[in-house]
Amino acid sequence: MVDIATRVYNHKWKIDPIVRSLIDTDFYKLLMCQSIFRNRPDTQVTFSLINRSSGIRLAELVDEGELREQLDHIRSLRLGRGESTWLRGNMFYGKRQMFRPDFMEWFENLQLPPYHLEKRDGQYELTFEGSWPEVMLWEIPALAVLMELRSRAVLHQMRRFELQILYARAMTKLWEKIERLKQVPDLRLADFGTRRRHSFLWQDWCVQALQEGLGRAFVGTSNCLIAMNRDLEAIGTNAHELPMVYAALAETDEELRQAPYRVLEDWHEEHEGMLRIILPDTYGTEGFLDNAPDWLTSWTGIRIDSGDPVAGAEAAIAWWRERGEDPREKLVIFSDGLDVNRIEDLTRRFAGRVRISFGWGTLLTNDFRGLVPGDALAPFSLVCKAVSADGRPTVKLSDNPNKAMGPADQVARYKRVFGVGSQTPIEVVV
Amino acid sequence: MVDIATRVYNHKWKIDPIVRSLIDTDFYKLLMCQSIFRNRPDTQVTFSLINRSSGIRLAELVDEGELREQLDHIRSLRLGRGESTWLRGNMFYGKRQMFRPDFMEWFENLQLPPYHLEKRDGQYELTFEGSWPEVMLWEIPALAVLMELRSRAVLHQMRRFELQILYARAMTKLWEKIERLKQVPDLRLADFGTRRRHSFLWQDWCVQALQEGLGRAFVGTSNCLIAMNRDLEAIGTNAHELPMVYAALAETDEELRQAPYRVLEDWHEEHEGMLRIILPDTYGTEGFLDNAPDWLTSWTGIRIDSGDPVAGAEAAIAWWRERGEDPREKLVIFSDGLDVNRIEDLTRRFAGRVRISFGWGTLLTNDFRGLVPGDALAPFSLVCKAVSADGRPTVKLSDNPNKAMGPADQVARYKRVFGVGSQTPIEVVV
Repeated sequence: MVDIATRVYNHKWKIDPIVRSLIDTDFYKLLMCQSIFRNRPDTQVTFSLINRSSGIRLAELVDEGELREQLDHIRSLRLGRGESTWLRGNMFYGKRQMFRPDFMEWFENLQLPPYHLEKRDGQYELTFEGSWPEVMLWEIPALAVLMELRSRAVLHQMRRFELQILYARAMTKLWEKIERLKQVPDLRLADFGTRRRHSFLWQDWCVQALQEGLGRAFVGTSNCLIAMNRDLEAIGTNAHELPMVYAALAETDEELRQAPYRVLEDWHEEHEGMLRIILPDTYGTEGFLDNAPDWLTSWTGIRIDSGDPVAGAEAAIAWWRERGEDPREKLVIFSDGLDVNRIEDLTRRFAGRVRISFGWGTLLTNDFRGLVPGDALAPFSLVCKAVSADGRPTVKLSDNPNKAMGPADQVARYKRVFGVGSQTPIEVVV
Repeated sequence: MVDIATRVYNHKWKIDPIVRSLIDTDFYKLLMCQSIFRNRPDTQVTFSLINRSSGIRLAELVDEGELREQLDHIRSLRLGRGESTWLRGNMFYGKRQMFRPDFMEWFENLQLPPYHLEKRDGQYELTFEGSWPEVMLWEIPALAVLMELRSRAVLHQMRRFELQILYARAMTKLWEKIERLKQVPDLRLADFGTRRRHSFLWQDWCVQALQEGLGRAFVGTSNCLIAMNRDLEAIGTNAHELPMVYAALAETDEELRQAPYRVLEDWHEEHEGMLRIILPDTYGTEGFLDNAPDWLTSWTGIRIDSGDPVAGAEAAIAWWRERGEDPREKLVIFSDGLDVNRIEDLTRRFAGRVRISFGWGTLLTNDFRGLVPGDALAPFSLVCKAVSADGRPTVKLSDNPNKAMGPADQVARYKRVFGVGSQTPIEVVV
């Protein structure tokens, strides 16, 4: 039997929306948004799309009209009643009412601010300006839209059976990874793949595959919509945008030096337990740890998001030991460029020495490498970052100079202030 | 949207039928049935299921109640009006009204005769007795039912995602074969995989994949129902059961020696062109060709269904040359144990020397080798053959002693009568 109603419904869509909900975003964006809404609601920021894979000429692949339709659709979204109820009532990391009533009221009335879109040199210049809590919520949907429109542009050229085989191969590929991950002892792994997913439906499939394949070793997803729909834990803590904006707002070098710790002071007040995760690499992990105040050693763990992950985790272990903490009670979350080999290696290396957990991103939800001619569906490195705050440029150094951002003079100043010496460049794949 | 009606409809099935139609069978069965209906309608035959893969203990894998349900369901089938119209009106091999009105009238009123089912030594003994035109139509549905019930027994143990991955892998595997076949010059290939298919739906998918992947190199399917539904050519000519039964009915050694040619005399009267395909191996290809009457050399081609396919095709080429025919105008159809490697090899070997075509069977529609633990879905060698005619045992020798059938004394007699010397045993995979 053909379901005529479904068929007709599908045909009458004006667009096939990529982002269907304001909570089709990473959980940590909402946590950070609430913190910003409380602490820095009036900061004016600009977020900008940056395609680090300049060989992918997005403006030639993706139709501008379709892109505008998708972005306009996102501006038409409002927080749904069920979504609001879930955010207000659900238990996150064991805590009820994580989101305060004043924040929820603001969120329920939120419309995302306007966007600016231009084409330049085969790329889209897509920027968002306005108050920080509003603008920052564009990051994930903007990335997801561009990633999926690029997928669709390639898929559009393919015939019915080619499509079926493509997904058959992609499913097989992921399942083979899951079968290897089943062998990893004491695995704790979460989906961090929203921003660079192949598509929404594919991410949703990946999550279901992890649920069935890994059972309790799969601890949840960063995607709030999927967490709500699939009855999973929403996972995430905080990101580079907090220290980047706090740093940009600093008036003096000394304020700049303290900015990353100011971020965590605010966070310390607001959160406890599993939400107290340090992200140390914004201006170099080594200096961050050396100069960290003592109260930070009591935090639950650390997230390693750039540089050599072994070096990063070893530095954290040494730091905890130095400060009298037992690393075996601490948590290291790896979230940079993970795939199965690296997860296996890191597990072998750190098992028994520290608790570890993995936030698996692009190579979970977008590993279409090698599946079509010319590798036209391979993932690429697209980011959407705060580039200025109250008119001042932001800077990111990280532990990999290939991930550094900001004007050259400011990068030099930050390197001086934070005492960052020479760094080893590592190729940024995704 | 969930289609409630479809869901409810699916739940109220008493059984999920494997054979849905009397024309879910091979086209050559209908051609032969019509010939038998005309020439030998009163012959009483017994057909019997024979599992040549004795390691597969079917009676332990397949529930007897389910098997009876499926067989009873087949007995409840009648030729549908649309099916009858298609058989009466469609053009087969360029000819209209291939099926004569008296045959069609008989077919429209046909119910398949009763079956006998017993368990012995972990196997099912399934036999059919009655008049030849009726009983012979059991062959393909009986095989398809047992093959698919065995598949279902294994699939029943699998979880949802395991099933999805299983089919993803099987699809990928077939598509990789198709991508190689696309490179084979002047390919002509048909689906001959009904009898040992993994399932009906899977065969239907395989056919669609060949349609899309190979285009005109895919010349059709032996399955009448799929040919009708998918607007494809129905492909097939004749099979061993004709010479086997004609031979069993012979009163003397001389009549026995002539029996295979009597079959083809009847066929010669009824058919022309692409339907005049010699199947020479029932009692040894070599003797068959040596003793063949001259009129047979005018036939269009030959089908190689056992023994070394290169030797068989070389023998046919040499025979045509000897008899003054140009092999380049003749057709060799390969239909035994084919997979891509063999198709490629045979094409290289015979391109330009003779026209060739392939009837791809089990490793098209049931190549689930290596896809589940213990290889529990690997295809196996099940046949359903005429074992007696008017009370006399049938015999098959073929060009591979591992495919020989019949009582030992009769096998010896046939070998003597047909002058079959030593043969090379070849492992029967499927």
